[in-house]
Amino acid sequence: MNTEAQAQRLVVGTMIGDPGGIGPEVIAKALATGRVHEYSIPVLVGSAAVMERALEMTGVKAKVRTMRPDELPSDDPGVIDIIDSGALKEPLPLGEDSARSGEASAIWLDELDTLTRNGTFAASIMGPISTGSLKLAGQLHKVISPVPGESYLVLITGPLRVIHLTDHMPLRQVCDVISADLIHHTLIEIDGAMKRWGIPNPRIVVAGLNPHATGDEEREAIAPGVARAREGGIDVEGPSSPDSVFRQGIEGRYDMVLAMYHDQGHIAVKTWGFSGNCVIILGPPYLHMSVAHGTAYDIVGKGVADPTMMLSAMCTCGSLAAGNGFPREQ
Amino acid sequence: MNTEAQAQRLVVGTMIGDPGGIGPEVIAKALATGRVHEYSIPVLVGSAAVMERALEMTGVKAKVRTMRPDELPSDDPGVIDIIDSGALKEPLPLGEDSARSGEASAIWLDELDTLTRNGTFAASIMGPISTGSLKLAGQLHKVISPVPGESYLVLITGPLRVIHLTDHMPLRQVCDVISADLIHHTLIEIDGAMKRWGIPNPRIVVAGLNPHATGDEEREAIAPGVARAREGGIDVEGPSSPDSVFRQGIEGRYDMVLAMYHDQGHIAVKTWGFSGNCVIILGPPYLHMSVAHGTAYDIVGKGVADPTMMLSAMCTCGSLAAGNGFPREQ
Repeated sequence: MNTEAQAQRLVVGTMIGDPGGIGPEVIAKALATGRVHEYSIPVLVGSAAVMERALEMTGVKAKVRTMRPDELPSDDPGVIDIIDSGALKEPLPLGEDSARSGEASAIWLDELDTLTRNGTFAASIMGPISTGSLKLAGQLHKVISPVPGESYLVLITGPLRVIHLTDHMPLRQVCDVISADLIHHTLIEIDGAMKRWGIPNPRIVVAGLNPHATGDEEREAIAPGVARAREGGIDVEGPSSPDSVFRQGIEGRYDMVLAMYHDQGHIAVKTWGFSGNCVIILGPPYLHMSVAHGTAYDIVGKGVADPTMMLSAMCTCGSLAAGNGFPREQ
Repeated sequence: MNTEAQAQRLVVGTMIGDPGGIGPEVIAKALATGRVHEYSIPVLVGSAAVMERALEMTGVKAKVRTMRPDELPSDDPGVIDIIDSGALKEPLPLGEDSARSGEASAIWLDELDTLTRNGTFAASIMGPISTGSLKLAGQLHKVISPVPGESYLVLITGPLRVIHLTDHMPLRQVCDVISADLIHHTLIEIDGAMKRWGIPNPRIVVAGLNPHATGDEEREAIAPGVARAREGGIDVEGPSSPDSVFRQGIEGRYDMVLAMYHDQGHIAVKTWGFSGNCVIILGPPYLHMSVAHGTAYDIVGKGVADPTMMLSAMCTCGSLAAGNGFPREQ
């Protein structure tokens, strides 16, 4: 990385995930590569005791340093800076859901949000949380569930990036929800976000809904929405045949594919099988990212958890937050 | 291939495709590998003059031999046996649609069907035809368009095989068409077909319709259809999360995935990007296959057309027709 880009490194906050899952382990391993510091100044939010245990489990040599939000981070790859408000003083048993894990996770998510809103962090990453633990704690609402027109899931897998118009919505309802307004609004959101992230002229393509993108929804909603966005100066094509457009994304023809529904994008991303998947949740007034895996209770504590997705999330988040675009290595 | 399997090689008929497209070229190249003869005794249906031209364009050294349907094929890899009824005596210009191409294609498709129904061929392959030419000839109806409950498109790409419950149907209509009866009927069809093809205990999985396979259609139609098939002795699981099930197919966990709609399967197959895709059209009373590409007018005659899909179709068709299962090399 050149000096100019290094000068733009910003503080990125990462919540360590559910304390009983693999979050702390994959974060320790990702930080140990030294690559995260090339893109950002990382600070964790969570429990110092849990991170100490993660270092033991992974064999990562580093010093855990508890810091206050108003202190300067050490910016030393040998030091793991963590903001620990005392929500969890002792590590909990690994590999199981509990109300205490959920309560701690909820507090850390709130802290992460507050510290990013107030500018302490330039962007934030959520480690793998457990919806089971959050449910036990009555805190499931802390997890952002994308709502069309308000928030969107963006999946990133190597050169393929997919924003989803709808998320966990029955397919029948998707057909009713698609409108020119929603398409237009989403295109403005993602185009603006990508420009902030350092992609000056984002090339976007919109997938159709129906086979070969020929149907009522394409004619009545998608095409008019795309036309309106083009009139507004957005470099967007479509509706394109859904079965070809993701391969075109992999081949570098577009910077972003807008998928109409959850499985359209998720089938492409998960079937292609690249290992460094990460996630942007577009909607909060700051860059918010996560990983594409969960707590992986079956392998937690064994030191075998793969940090590739977390490393990808941390490097991508630092690079985008600083307006440097997607990392080349992705 | 061992002697026992060789003893089971059967005569497979291949229609050469639109005479102005790459069909004749990729067939010539596929036959020249010698691999087609390991699985079948190939006989073409079409124009000898067009195949002569394809040999010149590709540089393939072979002898084109016109034969009558009641003659024995030569079964010599150096000889291209072709049944030429005289529908097209002179080659037509390359790379363009024409009514004459469409008329010839329609005649050859009829001959292919007749000769497979009467047992001259054990199975049949349709080369890449041009819907444009068939339309100009008023013969578009000769191409089988899958109808739910009657005929199905099966896509094969390496270890991933996907049968589609519906084909070119608007997504909104798919939600209405899915029923326990249709699922049950389709499972009986594909299970029976795979057993005939030499897969003694086919493991089938059914994709859900909605995200994570949790919705009304899963509860009311797909799960009851699967349950009924299981009661009937079919080894089938599901409904499974659509975004994971195709990767599981690639990893060899299932012999066949039943997809609910066109793009569910096509996105998986085309995004994965394996080059040897081929197609089974399940519905006719015999094994009927094709390739996943078209006439490729832009590269026709240049000798650069890739025969991988045609080779895959010819080897797979021979192997399945003889009841030897899917070829290992796939």
